Amino acid sequence: MKNFLLACVFLALASSFASAFDPSPLQDFCVAIDDPLHGVGSNVTAVNVQQIPGLNTLGISAARIDFAPYGQNPPHTHPRATEILVVLEGTLLVGFVTSNPNNTLISKVLNKGDVFVFPIGLIHFQFNIGKTNAIAIAALSSQNPGVITIANAVFGSDPAIDPGFLARAFQLDKYVVKGLQAKFWIDGN
Amino acid sequence: MKNFLLACVFLALASSFASAFDPSPLQDFCVAIDDPLHGVGSNVTAVNVQQIPGLNTLGISAARIDFAPYGQNPPHTHPRATEILVVLEGTLLVGFVTSNPNNTLISKVLNKGDVFVFPIGLIHFQFNIGKTNAIAIAALSSQNPGVITIANAVFGSDPAIDPGFLARAFQLDKYVVKGLQAKFWIDGN
Amino acid sequence: MKNFLLACVFLALASSFASAFDPSPLQDFCVAIDDPLHGVGSNVTAVNVQQIPGLNTLGISAARIDFAPYGQNPPHTHPRATEILVVLEGTLLVGFVTSNPNNTLISKVLNKGDVFVFPIGLIHFQFNIGKTNAIAIAALSSQNPGVITIANAVFGSDPAIDPGFLARAFQLDKYVVKGLQAKFWIDGN
Amino acid sequence: MKNFLLACVFLALASSFASAFDPSPLQDFCVAIDDPLHGVGSNVTAVNVQQIPGLNTLGISAARIDFAPYGQNPPHTHPRATEILVVLEGTLLVGFVTSNPNNTLISKVLNKGDVFVFPIGLIHFQFNIGKTNAIAIAALSSQNPGVITIANAVFGSDPAIDPGFLARAFQLDKYVVKGLQAKFWIDGN
Amino acid sequence: MKNFLLACVFLALASSFASAFDPSPLQDFCVAIDDPLHGVGSNVTAVNVQQIPGLNTLGISAARIDFAPYGQNPPHTHPRATEILVVLEGTLLVGFVTSNPNNTLISKVLNKGDVFVFPIGLIHFQFNIGKTNAIAIAALSSQNPGVITIANAVFGSDPAIDPGFLARAFQLDKYVVKGLQAKFWIDGN
Amino acid sequence: MKNFLLACVFLALASSFASAFDPSPLQDFCVAIDDPLHGVGSNVTAVNVQQIPGLNTLGISAARIDFAPYGQNPPHTHPRATEILVVLEGTLLVGFVTSNPNNTLISKVLNKGDVFVFPIGLIHFQFNIGKTNAIAIAALSSQNPGVITIANAVFGSDPAIDPGFLARAFQLDKYVVKGLQAKFWIDGN
Repeated sequence: MKNFLLACVFLALASSFASAFDPSPLQDFCVAIDDPLHGVGSNVTAVNVQQIPGLNTLGISAARIDFAPYGQNPPHTHPRATEILVVLEGTLLVGFVTSNPNNTLISKVLNKGDVFVFPIGLIHFQFNIGKTNAIAIAALSSQNPGVITIANAVFGSDPAIDPGFLARAFQLDKYVVKGLQAKFWIDGN
Repeated sequence: MKNFLLACVFLALASSFASAFDPSPLQDFCVAIDDPLHGVGSNVTAVNVQQIPGLNTLGISAARIDFAPYGQNPPHTHPRATEILVVLEGTLLVGFVTSNPNNTLISKVLNKGDVFVFPIGLIHFQFNIGKTNAIAIAALSSQNPGVITIANAVFGSDPAIDPGFLARAFQLDKYVVKGLQAKFWIDGN
Repeated sequence: MKNFLLACVFLALASSFASAFDPSPLQDFCVAIDDPLHGVGSNVTAVNVQQIPGLNTLGISAARIDFAPYGQNPPHTHPRATEILVVLEGTLLVGFVTSNPNNTLISKVLNKGDVFVFPIGLIHFQFNIGKTNAIAIAALSSQNPGVITIANAVFGSDPAIDPGFLARAFQLDKYVVKGLQAKFWIDGN
Repeated sequence: MKNFLLACVFLALASSFASAFDPSPLQDFCVAIDDPLHGVGSNVTAVNVQQIPGLNTLGISAARIDFAPYGQNPPHTHPRATEILVVLEGTLLVGFVTSNPNNTLISKVLNKGDVFVFPIGLIHFQFNIGKTNAIAIAALSSQNPGVITIANAVFGSDPAIDPGFLARAFQLDKYVVKGLQAKFWIDGN
Repeated sequence: MKNFLLACVFLALASSFASAFDPSPLQDFCVAIDDPLHGVGSNVTAVNVQQIPGLNTLGISAARIDFAPYGQNPPHTHPRATEILVVLEGTLLVGFVTSNPNNTLISKVLNKGDVFVFPIGLIHFQFNIGKTNAIAIAALSSQNPGVITIANAVFGSDPAIDPGFLARAFQLDKYVVKGLQAKFWIDGN
Repeated sequence: MKNFLLACVFLALASSFASAFDPSPLQDFCVAIDDPLHGVGSNVTAVNVQQIPGLNTLGISAARIDFAPYGQNPPHTHPRATEILVVLEGTLLVGFVTSNPNNTLISKVLNKGDVFVFPIGLIHFQFNIGKTNAIAIAALSSQNPGVITIANAVFGSDPAIDPGFLARAFQLDKYVVKGLQAKFWIDGN
């Protein structure tokens, strides 16, 4: 993970309301060592309106995604944005699933320089299928895209969704659901 | 399920481009007996731009949801719309989960006449917690809201998402995932 | 009107900014006895951003409309929303008029379960043509749709529009206009 | 009306998709002598997407309004646009009515060079209160704003709205309504 | 320039949030004598959300443009609006340039009563090619359209853009660029 | 320029309307050797709705920008999008100028990993101030952002803008303008 520490992101806000020249970065966040609690082997560094108030109304934001070997950015959605992804390093298997009734998986292996689009609100994922680290830049069509990690939202919500209800929805044994809720509650909180 | 057969929906399209008075319904769909393959005890009858081309650009659509006793409308999202729900009959436990990092569950028991809102793109559900059938009307802020049933999209996509990948994302045994994919592939197709 | 008093609406706000579970209704409004001043035999109970600040930006709202036998929801427009109407009880004659130069009336008799759409900004109405009470649910494609009741806005404004001007516009005798203004000024204020 | 004939409008379409220089006007419409059927003493010459397909998606249109002495542009709404009005000649009394429940009239006397705004969907009017002709330019915030002249839409629709229904809505005698429908049916068709 | 002083603009704000009748103009700005520093022979009097807070969200604004004989409104863009122009007096040569790669000039000579459209964000200009003053009314599809005068933004910014950089971009001698920056710095500040 | 030839961009379209898995790239464009006609030392490889019809309605696009040492992406605007820029390699001086009357230059030196935002419609530029090649990824908040290179649009349009007019607007000698038009006409065509 060493090279994670070498890549830092400096940021300058530039909004049409700015009335002066700002010589210093508004913020500086280095990509931290991959969070062991997350456990899926990826780390997302977001640049959106929460970090940059001046992005408000501008309809765009960005993120850098670092993947450990075989790391994944698990199935998730952005409730308010389409995402365009550019691979900088490594080889990613990416995909998304269309809405009902088709539930068609659209997926592809991407190499350095490849670009892929995830339409607004659809469940999508990225998977580093290579032996080396991978890096991608994502841009999103909203200054406040939001992110919903499916497993965390379904099994890690606080308070928890009724286990019997989820067992029927996911056709899982109720005790399996309770086990998942125990795992994801830690993860999501 | 008998009373399902008594409630029929007749529909008239009314668009600002219509140039004549249409005395007959454009379509007529009776709520059928709950589909046994679905197995969750609810039935959604949608009225959107797929049924009504004239809804295009008007930014709204509707659906009727019928619930068997203890039936559920499982966790799902609408990628392009906020939903407002009105309960006509019965008692529903409804909820949605906010986006990361909070994953807060906002839920409530609704009785006849209650109204609830599910913001665009968030995972939400309804559960008939009563001994009787329940009926609700939902309106959505798009003529083409789309729907993604989480379990079907994740475990029932065609082609299937790699089971090993999903096993890690959902912290499930790979064989449990394969079992789910076998069940939801039937359901989703 | 007795059964009006039995149908109460409890409401829970659910916005994506909510950070906690709210166990109690945000408001409770029972449909009151039909306002004798209004005199047209209908009563509209709205659920929009004025009642629910959290609806802001979500682009949807709803209303329940109760009709006495032969009651009407008189010609009106919503300046900022399309409306979709679902009939719950009774039989309604509904319609709207297209814009100039056509001024075509699109109308239809709706029974329980029927759905109809009134495009944004067009003049429309509902009329209970049955011997019994009628109930409908309307959803609107804005959290702040607004409503303009034509007769009240034209003849009941405060201050009043010049009677001679209105007499020419509506091809009515000036004294008829003054009589209308006297009636609607009470009604609108 | 002589000076009406002197003012002609030549038009050139300019869209970002145009791929060539167009040296000749796309259309030429002279303001005709005021239509005697209309009878209110104004004439509207519109420039919108119906005349200019290239305006599509550009979100703006315009109109020239010519007023005879004491002529009026009767109460109307634009279902899809806000209007900004600039007076070129003469003195106009203009106004609009806010939405329910206030029904407040906002009005003002405008002279040459004055500017006024009519918010989207609200009922508004202009009245030439001077002894001379008046001319105004209106711009609208849509390429397809639409216009609904209240009296024509309510009393001149084809087919007609039930006279008994309108009599109750407008608190007029049913025979007065039938008389109005006879007048406006001619006017509107 | 005398007749410039005779034409004054009085303004009344009318917003749907207004709750009272405002009998007096909100502001009064007379078109001043053409600013000698500007030196291009035109004067723009804008009516947008900076002057009228109530225009906010209404999506429209306006401007009056006065031209001295052979005066010009130099190449500029509106970053947030399409413009529709109506000529009131005089003869204007107007034009805009399409985006890359075409860079096609769409231009036309306009006389009194002519209308022309400048699509959002494109570089455009107006030139009074007559011996007399000219006047035009422009409407813009935003309450806050913004304006960027190309020469002032490029050569008159504060602080200045590196002269060597601009020399290469505009294929000008570096000392020519420095001379331009000296001229436009005065003009732009 | 050798390493330009090593970086190729493969592209896969993913739209919500896609109904099948597409195993092969939709297109393949390698960044070519820098075009000698352009002469500013940068090369933009765009990924927008012209290349990818499926991006339509999704509100986002991307571009890769390669810079030779001391190469520049000259002053330009995007008429329909805000841009967010991420530096992958090298050191860039970037900036934009606010709208009139301020014409304030907001600029900053960016290093690898830095992010900067250029608000919609404002004139902006990037300048490689390092001895080595530089690479940046830009994302834009429209599937069809458009680009207007200021010098090419003003001095290289076809047909040409009147040199006397431009000489006054830019306070340049008419023969200097004619010289620029000769240079940029080649460049822009």
